[in-house]
Amino acid sequence: MLYTEIPTHRPITPLLDTIDHPQQLRLLERDQLEKVADELRQYILYAAGQSGGHFGANLGVIELTVALHYCFNTPHDRLIWDVGHQAYPHKALTGRREQLTTIRAKAGLAAFPTREESVFDTFGVGHSSTAISAGLGMALARRYLNDPCDVVAIIGDGAMTAGMAFEAMNDAVAHQADLMVVLNDNDMSISCSTGGFAKHLAAIWARGESVNISDAGEAYIQPHPEWLYNSRLHCAATDAADNLFKAIGFDYFGPFDGHDVVQLVQVFKALKKRKGPRLIHVYTKKGKGFIPAESDQIKYHAINKINTVTAVSTVPKYSDVFGQWLCDEAAQDKRLLAITPAMCEGSGMVQFSKQFPTRFFDVAIAEQHAVTLAAGMACEGLKPVVAIYSTFLQRGYDQLVHDVALQNLDVTFAIDRAGLVGEDGPTHAGAYDYAFMRTVPNIVIMAPKDENECRQMLHTGYLYNGPAAVRYPRGNGIGVQIQQQLTALDLGKAEIVLSLNEQYDEQISILAFGSRVSAAIEAAQALSLRHDVGVRVVNMRFIKPLDEVLISQLAESTNLFVTVEEHAVMAGAGSAVNEYLAQAQIVKPILNLGLADTFMHQASHAQMLEQAGLNAKGIEKSIELAWLKRAQTASL
Amino acid sequence: MLYTEIPTHRPITPLLDTIDHPQQLRLLERDQLEKVADELRQYILYAAGQSGGHFGANLGVIELTVALHYCFNTPHDRLIWDVGHQAYPHKALTGRREQLTTIRAKAGLAAFPTREESVFDTFGVGHSSTAISAGLGMALARRYLNDPCDVVAIIGDGAMTAGMAFEAMNDAVAHQADLMVVLNDNDMSISCSTGGFAKHLAAIWARGESVNISDAGEAYIQPHPEWLYNSRLHCAATDAADNLFKAIGFDYFGPFDGHDVVQLVQVFKALKKRKGPRLIHVYTKKGKGFIPAESDQIKYHAINKINTVTAVSTVPKYSDVFGQWLCDEAAQDKRLLAITPAMCEGSGMVQFSKQFPTRFFDVAIAEQHAVTLAAGMACEGLKPVVAIYSTFLQRGYDQLVHDVALQNLDVTFAIDRAGLVGEDGPTHAGAYDYAFMRTVPNIVIMAPKDENECRQMLHTGYLYNGPAAVRYPRGNGIGVQIQQQLTALDLGKAEIVLSLNEQYDEQISILAFGSRVSAAIEAAQALSLRHDVGVRVVNMRFIKPLDEVLISQLAESTNLFVTVEEHAVMAGAGSAVNEYLAQAQIVKPILNLGLADTFMHQASHAQMLEQAGLNAKGIEKSIELAWLKRAQTASL
Repeated sequence: MLYTEIPTHRPITPLLDTIDHPQQLRLLERDQLEKVADELRQYILYAAGQSGGHFGANLGVIELTVALHYCFNTPHDRLIWDVGHQAYPHKALTGRREQLTTIRAKAGLAAFPTREESVFDTFGVGHSSTAISAGLGMALARRYLNDPCDVVAIIGDGAMTAGMAFEAMNDAVAHQADLMVVLNDNDMSISCSTGGFAKHLAAIWARGESVNISDAGEAYIQPHPEWLYNSRLHCAATDAADNLFKAIGFDYFGPFDGHDVVQLVQVFKALKKRKGPRLIHVYTKKGKGFIPAESDQIKYHAINKINTVTAVSTVPKYSDVFGQWLCDEAAQDKRLLAITPAMCEGSGMVQFSKQFPTRFFDVAIAEQHAVTLAAGMACEGLKPVVAIYSTFLQRGYDQLVHDVALQNLDVTFAIDRAGLVGEDGPTHAGAYDYAFMRTVPNIVIMAPKDENECRQMLHTGYLYNGPAAVRYPRGNGIGVQIQQQLTALDLGKAEIVLSLNEQYDEQISILAFGSRVSAAIEAAQALSLRHDVGVRVVNMRFIKPLDEVLISQLAESTNLFVTVEEHAVMAGAGSAVNEYLAQAQIVKPILNLGLADTFMHQASHAQMLEQAGLNAKGIEKSIELAWLKRAQTASL
Repeated sequence: MLYTEIPTHRPITPLLDTIDHPQQLRLLERDQLEKVADELRQYILYAAGQSGGHFGANLGVIELTVALHYCFNTPHDRLIWDVGHQAYPHKALTGRREQLTTIRAKAGLAAFPTREESVFDTFGVGHSSTAISAGLGMALARRYLNDPCDVVAIIGDGAMTAGMAFEAMNDAVAHQADLMVVLNDNDMSISCSTGGFAKHLAAIWARGESVNISDAGEAYIQPHPEWLYNSRLHCAATDAADNLFKAIGFDYFGPFDGHDVVQLVQVFKALKKRKGPRLIHVYTKKGKGFIPAESDQIKYHAINKINTVTAVSTVPKYSDVFGQWLCDEAAQDKRLLAITPAMCEGSGMVQFSKQFPTRFFDVAIAEQHAVTLAAGMACEGLKPVVAIYSTFLQRGYDQLVHDVALQNLDVTFAIDRAGLVGEDGPTHAGAYDYAFMRTVPNIVIMAPKDENECRQMLHTGYLYNGPAAVRYPRGNGIGVQIQQQLTALDLGKAEIVLSLNEQYDEQISILAFGSRVSAAIEAAQALSLRHDVGVRVVNMRFIKPLDEVLISQLAESTNLFVTVEEHAVMAGAGSAVNEYLAQAQIVKPILNLGLADTFMHQASHAQMLEQAGLNAKGIEKSIELAWLKRAQTASL
């Protein structure tokens, strides 16, 4: 069935309602599975409308999910969903159907499979391209334990471009592991898939034939229907005389129609019997069955909740501020090139990619390569900008150290989604970037207090002749005027943004970093009204180099230092201040506020900040406690 | 010519001596190139014998290096040597011939190509698999600048298994970049190559035919000589009906004999004229021309200096201590599996791999996959140990955070080569692991003061039901007795190892981490003789969790805290102590000793420690200065 609207009321799904465990699904007849899939699709449309969140990928794997749970003895057999933003149907069929409307909300279901949520979630995911490695680990473990089970990793064509998927396939062949990989080929990651691998898949399709499998498990070649061929012409096909999966040593089957649940069941049942590494190539369509999503797959990668009136904010997102700066800087400087690892839309680069197509490089999901590509470009005198989420830069860490910083190359990192990210949860939080970057020589690290400063910092980092990073949060700015004019900040200079109760002898100096500056200001105002103490707030701007001169100056009249950041306390920006105080032999009490040493479950960004004690109220409370305690200690 | 001995006197190389710039090489006739290669081989044998260091790989690429510099207009054209341990012939042909005997020594040539050493070193390397990304960056930059040059990335078959090489090939095809990749296939990384990719290369060889190139640049198929076929049967060949490079979209040529310099010249000259991404597959032999190295390629990966009598140390290397522990623990616990990313020998795992072949997993150069594979195994209730060098763990950082720590999985990391590594220089230093690991929740981090403690810590980390890491240095232990008995340490408990001058009111507490404990003890002894102050040394053992109880206790009678570690001061273990003092509102002077915020050039380990002020003398001096300054401040 095709749908054109997201239902606002729970659809009637009598067959689906009988399935609280996949065992119940497996009792059905094969000819009932299409009905299950149809009801599941209606239900997912409804549930995703209630919760908001990932959308198109879930609609694309409904038949696949039904077929997998029908054919495999889950949870004894292991299904590993790569990335996991397509796991809503899986969650619905494994006892979590009615909770699906709570997905991504505080105390609701997680956005991705997580081991603590269900035994059916065999591996926690969120970042792409881990499923084959994890599945191989399980398969080898079970072989070693002499307790075999079927292990199936389901991975998208977009995720296949990341090197670790290739590493895992190489190793699976080394061990002749009994591992099934389902390549869910929808010709997309979040953006369109790109590169030689995508062309290769297109060529396999264009060849017009499938490697099918008989019920007895024998492979045979057959032509595939023309509609299948026609549906897969996104990329220019080249030549499929060679098959990459067979070359690396996998048994290859497909391509198959990933929406034909009956055929999928036949294929999986037959291929279960085989040994060794097998790849089953299926074609699915992102947004399948929901007409608006089928025709605009990028827009419908994720949706907002329906029924809630989302006030359209006039305040730009940080990613838009980045995108605008990128265009403006590029217009001024021909040396600027921009790189994204498959996050053109999320990083705000659509406009740039249209305006400067020859200067825009979407390298696919390939963070390691993205960073070293930039290094190579910088060697030729150009000035590449790498736009990357904080959490994904973890994938390019060695390249940042070894290929960029060690050679002191002129690469600018625009680090989006830094700090807590809300509904996506701990896999997407950017809580460690100060720690892993500031320890590396040569790099300049900045964090803006607002969207205008973000723009000016990007310019500052860009002008700096060496590696520089600006890390900014997910979501909207705070609503300040953005200066068109690009003005470089003084390197390593902080600014005092507030100084209250200056008349008192005793002073608190709050050194605030990035997104926490405005909350620190609020906290300072509240404190200044309630205590006879001076309170100063510094917008530190630079994590590296720190404004050591200002810290030393402030120290002369500071009785308590406070650092505040949206980053782990451990090894973070506050820790850099501690190090400087130690080095300068400034012996003063200091309170480091930031994220505690724990992974935080998903909730809204505001809820997470509250929980972490990093909203204005929380900051105020912590400082007050420390101040009172200090006063006690001092009076002893 | 074949050689059987490493010459102790400089060989006579009249033709080679005329080449101080590759321009001079290019003036020679083609039929003189074999003579150049032969003289170069003799000279490399001599020079490597003088300097020690990488060996086999250099002998394997002599003809290739001569042919490349002969055919390409270096340095205008860009040669990028992947890993770079095979760049001695390249250095010799580019004006650094006579300095080659100083390679790896302080103030000598670097072990790897580095941009600051020569314009011919287009990209600094050391870690594997970066060359295609860097070369693609250069090629795309030059295309954008409309100033084309030839770009050639030379990469080994071992390095090709790392995912980032695949990412780069995928992207090169997307851009149809004018990039030549030379696959230097010697069937080895440092160990033997492994996995589907190695099998694929074997299958290509076994096919018995080459894709050759005419002088006009046309490809044609020809049989290759039988000896070539026979020389490449290390791996069991499967079926080469498919070609991986062609599948991904590269033009493929080869395999060619990489020691036939005349044919190589013909091939490179012809393929220069082609556009787009091209892969030239050549077969070389590690150690070529030196008979002992040809027959034991792993042993001759690197050699010691000749002429120097290296006293055989009876003190075991830390890697041997690890290897022995691994065998002992495995004998006791069947759940132990061990994983290495292509570092079986370096990590001390040869014995284990023989004794427990079904529990040993060499995953090839694939650090990302290695970590997530372990996570998958842990999901099935096994207890994997990942042996990895500190600097290479940077490649698996995201996987450590996202796949292991976030799921609190029971994986033990044995982190070798932590701290300064001496002759290999900054690319191989392990100076950041505390920083990037300690910020991650759930992980336990330890560093041993000696080889026995290393063994016991590995046992402790192994027993801990969650992620744990033990980081230990390169080279030999300090010569203590090793207890056979495995005894778990108390989690998070430090030990006071020395307490001198207890009678004085004023006390210095030195909190020493890992390899710096013994130097701290020496420093403390010296200080206690020269100053009227108590000096205590604590072997901290745990970086995470810190022994906060002990620090608080010590604080009561401490006038100066000192932290010492072989790691960057920034975000390091000392920084963790600072954070605890701040949190506990303990306001005391503290001196953080560790590595400064700079990349250190190669030298011996002892020289580097001296330079960093981290030997006993340096530690003593720094503490003395801080103590005197503190006394001054206190008396004001």
